[in-house]
Amino acid sequence: MSKQPITPRDQDYSRWYLDVIAHADLVDSSPVRGCMVLKPHGYAVWEAIKDDLDARFKATGHVNAYFPLFIPQSFLSKEAEHVEGFAKECAVVTHHRLKATPDGVIPDPAAQLEEPLVVRPTSETIIWHMYGRWISSWRDLPLLINQWANVVRWEMRTRPFLRTAEFLWQEGHTAHATRTEAEEEAQRMLQVYRDFCWETLAVPVRTGVKTASERFAGAVDTYTIEGLMQNGWALQCGTSHFLGQNFARAFDVTFQNSDGDLEHVWATSWGVSTRLVGALIMTHSDDAGLVLPPRVAPIQIVIVPIYRADKRDMVMDFVGKVRGLLGRRFRVHVDDRDNMKPGAKYFEWERKGVPLRLEIGPRDVENSAVFSKLRTQDGKFGLDVDDGLADKVAEVLDGMQQALLDAAVARRDAATFEVDSYDALKAGLESQPGFYLVPWKDDADNEAAIKADCKATIRCYPLQGQDAAAGRTCFYSGEPATHMALFARAY
Amino acid sequence: MSKQPITPRDQDYSRWYLDVIAHADLVDSSPVRGCMVLKPHGYAVWEAIKDDLDARFKATGHVNAYFPLFIPQSFLSKEAEHVEGFAKECAVVTHHRLKATPDGVIPDPAAQLEEPLVVRPTSETIIWHMYGRWISSWRDLPLLINQWANVVRWEMRTRPFLRTAEFLWQEGHTAHATRTEAEEEAQRMLQVYRDFCWETLAVPVRTGVKTASERFAGAVDTYTIEGLMQNGWALQCGTSHFLGQNFARAFDVTFQNSDGDLEHVWATSWGVSTRLVGALIMTHSDDAGLVLPPRVAPIQIVIVPIYRADKRDMVMDFVGKVRGLLGRRFRVHVDDRDNMKPGAKYFEWERKGVPLRLEIGPRDVENSAVFSKLRTQDGKFGLDVDDGLADKVAEVLDGMQQALLDAAVARRDAATFEVDSYDALKAGLESQPGFYLVPWKDDADNEAAIKADCKATIRCYPLQGQDAAAGRTCFYSGEPATHMALFARAY
Repeated sequence: MSKQPITPRDQDYSRWYLDVIAHADLVDSSPVRGCMVLKPHGYAVWEAIKDDLDARFKATGHVNAYFPLFIPQSFLSKEAEHVEGFAKECAVVTHHRLKATPDGVIPDPAAQLEEPLVVRPTSETIIWHMYGRWISSWRDLPLLINQWANVVRWEMRTRPFLRTAEFLWQEGHTAHATRTEAEEEAQRMLQVYRDFCWETLAVPVRTGVKTASERFAGAVDTYTIEGLMQNGWALQCGTSHFLGQNFARAFDVTFQNSDGDLEHVWATSWGVSTRLVGALIMTHSDDAGLVLPPRVAPIQIVIVPIYRADKRDMVMDFVGKVRGLLGRRFRVHVDDRDNMKPGAKYFEWERKGVPLRLEIGPRDVENSAVFSKLRTQDGKFGLDVDDGLADKVAEVLDGMQQALLDAAVARRDAATFEVDSYDALKAGLESQPGFYLVPWKDDADNEAAIKADCKATIRCYPLQGQDAAAGRTCFYSGEPATHMALFARAY
Repeated sequence: MSKQPITPRDQDYSRWYLDVIAHADLVDSSPVRGCMVLKPHGYAVWEAIKDDLDARFKATGHVNAYFPLFIPQSFLSKEAEHVEGFAKECAVVTHHRLKATPDGVIPDPAAQLEEPLVVRPTSETIIWHMYGRWISSWRDLPLLINQWANVVRWEMRTRPFLRTAEFLWQEGHTAHATRTEAEEEAQRMLQVYRDFCWETLAVPVRTGVKTASERFAGAVDTYTIEGLMQNGWALQCGTSHFLGQNFARAFDVTFQNSDGDLEHVWATSWGVSTRLVGALIMTHSDDAGLVLPPRVAPIQIVIVPIYRADKRDMVMDFVGKVRGLLGRRFRVHVDDRDNMKPGAKYFEWERKGVPLRLEIGPRDVENSAVFSKLRTQDGKFGLDVDDGLADKVAEVLDGMQQALLDAAVARRDAATFEVDSYDALKAGLESQPGFYLVPWKDDADNEAAIKADCKATIRCYPLQGQDAAAGRTCFYSGEPATHMALFARAY
């Protein structure tokens, strides 16, 4: 763990982000370019995210499966737009054997693959190849499959959680008999993501649809959830794509409808990744380190016993009782390390973002109470152990969860501006970074020009509030507006 | 799903195995050589295995983490024996970009990696590289880390679950201050595996230690759990390795002990994989298809409603009530497909190995009872819905779990033989395949000669019963025996 103090946010936001990660011991860099190691505490946050999302996917009728890591190189060329987007910075496997030489091992020239394999950057191609075998009739539809997997996209500039060459994610791939059903599915999963972010991560994402230039390669529509970080930059937190019949056509996947006619299948795909951990960090953490909302904290409560040697048994017995009272409803950790002072433990768990700390010394045992400290509040408060402790703790943690969401919503709203001139956007981005909502005429060239000029991109056309565009003129071109667009600088 | 009937076991065991898998819809082959697709039902079995094991790992103090998929080629050469074992049939990444050409995409010659990367066949090397950064003092020890991951070993002959190029597994990697502690850890995890197999999979594995020639490349001792399949062939179901200081030396990982002296760290690693699904299938399934022990069945109870249109609501209300009574304690699925007859549903769930089927028709509603059928018993029996249904179902499922284990133990014992001549082994392997326990003088050349002659290998020196070797002569060489050895033909 880092020995340097955490750089304050207002001094250097990027440095602060890396410091929070180092002090919370979430990841380490690896000897493989662009690949990070998820250390136990970082992986535990991802596990908490995964468990919650997996239950939401299953509750909406999805099942998990697992498809191969490797994709035949030729598959990437089959969908015309997909090849543009994904057949680029990929890890390419060309040999299947190493050979020992006096200078160490080398790829064995005699073991070159006939067709190179690509390490999946996303799995539409191989999954739709398989769907071609599994689907023949309307009775086989819908197919509602999700996969938890690692993927690789060779990235030049990486940043922990936000952009790494290998990352962990889930990718849902569904197949439907009708356009309407597929469109509903894409929107349903966007809503599942949105609810998860609000309810579990306390990250108040906005939902919207991407412009053509920000669309997933091969999609008809890309829906997105966009978060606003504390520095006023946006972060795309997840996407859900309506793929139309593009992949069904590319992989020739048809079904016989109930009238006996052959039709191409309709598709969606949707994914979120370890990037969500980055969203969590940048939404809630402070200059003292990581802050984790209780619902996604791997350790929700840490108990720190305080004693001199002669009181050890007495204190630890009481700690055992408290753990017993809380252990069934909460994720509790007792920090009983003997080679560390209580103050050092407080400091460590604070930087690791544990929501609630309970301190238990001999006097607390006598009072049958615990001394409590919330990660996000100054001051400590007592909790009676014999009078509904678990209910009281639930109330405290629910309150913290709600307060984090409220604060994030307030920050987001305070950093959301409506402007109607391009000058106002440019000036605003410099003085008050945030979401900028503007009347806009959909136009890829203008979008590119703005991006080149002031690094702002259209994060989405928000699903809510499009009516406001009616009768207005585009803030950039002066032509009649087609949409309300949300601009921001983004990671 | 396959339309051909399942080949009986006694007709063609290998064919039977593939048929059971096809009829239960567990996997599909993929367009990538040696890689299989885990279909939803197959993946769900792996998920059940994973959830149970993960809880056991956490209960013994282990935490999860995630290390990179790629390993720099040079790492594999660092541990002298490891390179022999693993730097062979690997997937080698040599390029990081594809390039579009008129004939499709190709690896971009301008994007060749300076050092090729190997897709992990196992992660000791990269993990010990990282441990070198994380460990400096005895205070940093032990490190008890597990990883759930995909790995790749380029295999020429593959068989679903038993041997595939890519497979899913967990790999534990622990670091310790003393030899004793590491040896205890390796044996503890072997015991965790053993208990899991007996208690959850109802697969009565034997525990033992491997001979030098069957040891993991880089290990000092390899412990193993060995199952005996219904055809009398052995299946290695998991291994736990005491690695001594081999990887610590190769990656120069030292710690300062409490006296201030530098020592190399002691290590273990241990893993089980999707191969366990193969062990499950070949231990319990029958000529009617898959049999899943209740504790590992993704669906423990399937409810099949039976009605004509006018009784639908009445039956479905009652089905809802039964599901409510059982859903909190068991994994229940209601098969309410309207386009399928009850008999076809029974047949499908039978082949998919669901332990208990409940049939509910109008008359059952009137009687407030359900008609029940266990996967492993002929005949149906009634269950009263209003009189402790969940407890009764628990009893029935526990009974099935125990009966499967008892049957497997009985089969294993009936196919375990003690012989004291090589002729008896050879003849026995032909007429009665199984475990052959023999007095044996440890000798790699003789071991190799026997393998070449009759395809039998030493599965292990069983942990129990080694005293029996004292004073006896080796069944092969006639020299004084050093061990009791368990021979078998194996997958």
